[in-house]
Amino acid sequence: AHIVTLPGDGVGPEVTAAAVAVLDTIAAHYDHHFHFEEHQIGGCAIDATGEPLPKASLDACKAADAVLLGAVGGPKWSDPNAPVRPEQGLLALRAALGVYANLRPLQVHPALAELSPLKNEKLKNVDVLFVRELTGGAYFGAKTRTIDTAIDECKYTVAEVERVTRRAFQLARERRKHVTSVDKANVLETSRLWRTTVQRIAQEFPDVKLEHQLVDSMAMLLLTQPGKYDVVVTENLFGDILTDEAAALAGSLGLLPSASLGEAKGGLYEPIHGSAPDIAGQGVANPIGAILSTAMLLRHSLGLEQEAAMVEAAVADVLEHGPHTRDIGGSAGTQDVLDAVLAAID
Amino acid sequence: AHIVTLPGDGVGPEVTAAAVAVLDTIAAHYDHHFHFEEHQIGGCAIDATGEPLPKASLDACKAADAVLLGAVGGPKWSDPNAPVRPEQGLLALRAALGVYANLRPLQVHPALAELSPLKNEKLKNVDVLFVRELTGGAYFGAKTRTIDTAIDECKYTVAEVERVTRRAFQLARERRKHVTSVDKANVLETSRLWRTTVQRIAQEFPDVKLEHQLVDSMAMLLLTQPGKYDVVVTENLFGDILTDEAAALAGSLGLLPSASLGEAKGGLYEPIHGSAPDIAGQGVANPIGAILSTAMLLRHSLGLEQEAAMVEAAVADVLEHGPHTRDIGGSAGTQDVLDAVLAAID
Ligand SMILES: CC(C)[C@H](C(=O)O)[C@@H](O)C(=O)O
Ligand SMILES: CC(C)[C@H](C(=O)O)[C@@H](O)C(=O)O
Repeated sequence: AHIVTLPGDGVGPEVTAAAVAVLDTIAAHYDHHFHFEEHQIGGCAIDATGEPLPKASLDACKAADAVLLGAVGGPKWSDPNAPVRPEQGLLALRAALGVYANLRPLQVHPALAELSPLKNEKLKNVDVLFVRELTGGAYFGAKTRTIDTAIDECKYTVAEVERVTRRAFQLARERRKHVTSVDKANVLETSRLWRTTVQRIAQEFPDVKLEHQLVDSMAMLLLTQPGKYDVVVTENLFGDILTDEAAALAGSLGLLPSASLGEAKGGLYEPIHGSAPDIAGQGVANPIGAILSTAMLLRHSLGLEQEAAMVEAAVADVLEHGPHTRDIGGSAGTQDVLDAVLAAID
Repeated sequence: AHIVTLPGDGVGPEVTAAAVAVLDTIAAHYDHHFHFEEHQIGGCAIDATGEPLPKASLDACKAADAVLLGAVGGPKWSDPNAPVRPEQGLLALRAALGVYANLRPLQVHPALAELSPLKNEKLKNVDVLFVRELTGGAYFGAKTRTIDTAIDECKYTVAEVERVTRRAFQLARERRKHVTSVDKANVLETSRLWRTTVQRIAQEFPDVKLEHQLVDSMAMLLLTQPGKYDVVVTENLFGDILTDEAAALAGSLGLLPSASLGEAKGGLYEPIHGSAPDIAGQGVANPIGAILSTAMLLRHSLGLEQEAAMVEAAVADVLEHGPHTRDIGGSAGTQDVLDAVLAAID
């Protein structure tokens, strides 16, 4: 398989190197051949080429079986009014690859429950899969700016809602058969289209239970009843907010992976943490989010379920017995954690 | 003073009656005269007149010194595709009164810390005042719907951002002198206008510290470091989501008040909970959110600071010693709690 890596900025290169090491070990163990090709994205790409997503990077990603990304952004490129910004590279990549379904699983490892801001009893049975629409909504709508006015257009078509909803229902079938669709249908026109479409698609999945929640209520329910949810599907911006809120429950952003999938082969895999400039280059970043992203890559892009489960088991083992990086209360470095994961694979 | 009450739907009438009783007691105690005039809004208004905000209600609200609202909505009127909906009445009222600044204070009473989903140590020093922009953004932008597409326009002008920001800074001056402005400036044009404008207004308040956060980070920070925030100012939809998330920290939505203020005299006061149809008419709704809203009314619309503080002290007393309604772990009814508050005032 042909895998493009986009280490990006900040801690991106460190955690991506760890993820590649895990994939190499899996390849050796199961006798696969993974070929890696590294490209630039984000701030480092702006510095090198003037563009946050150079054509060479984009072409390579389009041709790949999967893309593994680190993180983009940093203080050097953080002026939101600058004409060229690292995030533009990420958004352009999502759009170009057509990866409309962003999967963000949330589980709270029992050994880390103490790190969660939530009380222990609330964390029982927390196992949520967010499916965030990733290529539509206000992120990609028309933007207008005059001297005294700004406008963002949030637009959704029925087809855009259908495909991400169908993906959510399919995933729910493999899980606890419960989909919660989140919108703001009492206020937004796009949410009314969203809700009507979700209701119609649900009829294709009579074995899956559908529930609707308003986004404000959901922001509350994620804290009061997090164990109640299975698959949560929502539009781009609501998904951005709710998945970060949910991520706080896990104790550290550094633990969580994501997969972004479209219709085509390929797929974009990244830890949900950012570039963490404050700890970049120190060898202390938590590689678990990036490593768990490789498990999602093995499962969703390469169809290697057993290998994916092996990576997840190795990570669970390390979360239980250590070593742990600082963000989860330990003092180990990135390499120590990686070594432990590799040892647990072998 | 002339106060219009809009009890609305569900538990609205019960909690509004309790709020009026508190204001009557305050009036007697301090020798004020408050004149009340009741009008319809929401589902009950649709049933009675076909409109969620009849002209008589609107005219009365415009002429009043303050408006006290219960809640709107319920299962009978919950189809988001219905042409006339209860929420439209609330949104139309906010717009017509020009109440662009929605103040939502969050404090966690020590006696109720056990009810919060958050760990006790996280709740220390939590005292946040959200200032949510209430008459702009996607709530009031142009909406378009065709057979296969929906569009919501989110629009902000510099003037809209200026006035709500100024209000937030003024409020921060009376508090801990720290404003956190929340936006999504790495993606949205309206957020870039928001941020630039907030930065400029901040220069009028050199004694107040300004910090910017992205909305996704803020959804996380509210859980990991809730004690760090003083005044949080944000646009309409982000404010809707973040204040509900924050409300979960208090242990029950039933406890929290709100005030919506504009430039003119008058102001709209309501508990942040909804119509709670499941418990409506049973006499068990928590009246504290509505009662604390009267304290905000006394303070912000009538300039009666001492009276406001008296109501707040009476509520604190009841939260500490009971009686408590079911939502906060007790078994008392609305009237029991009201009686205790009134007794604590006298
Ligand atoms: C970096 C930013 C544009 C991005 C987003 O908002 O989608 C990030 O927050 C994420 O969730 O992946
Ligand atoms: C009822 C609804 C329209 C309203 C809103 O979204 O503003 C409510 O959620 C609120 O926060 O007051």
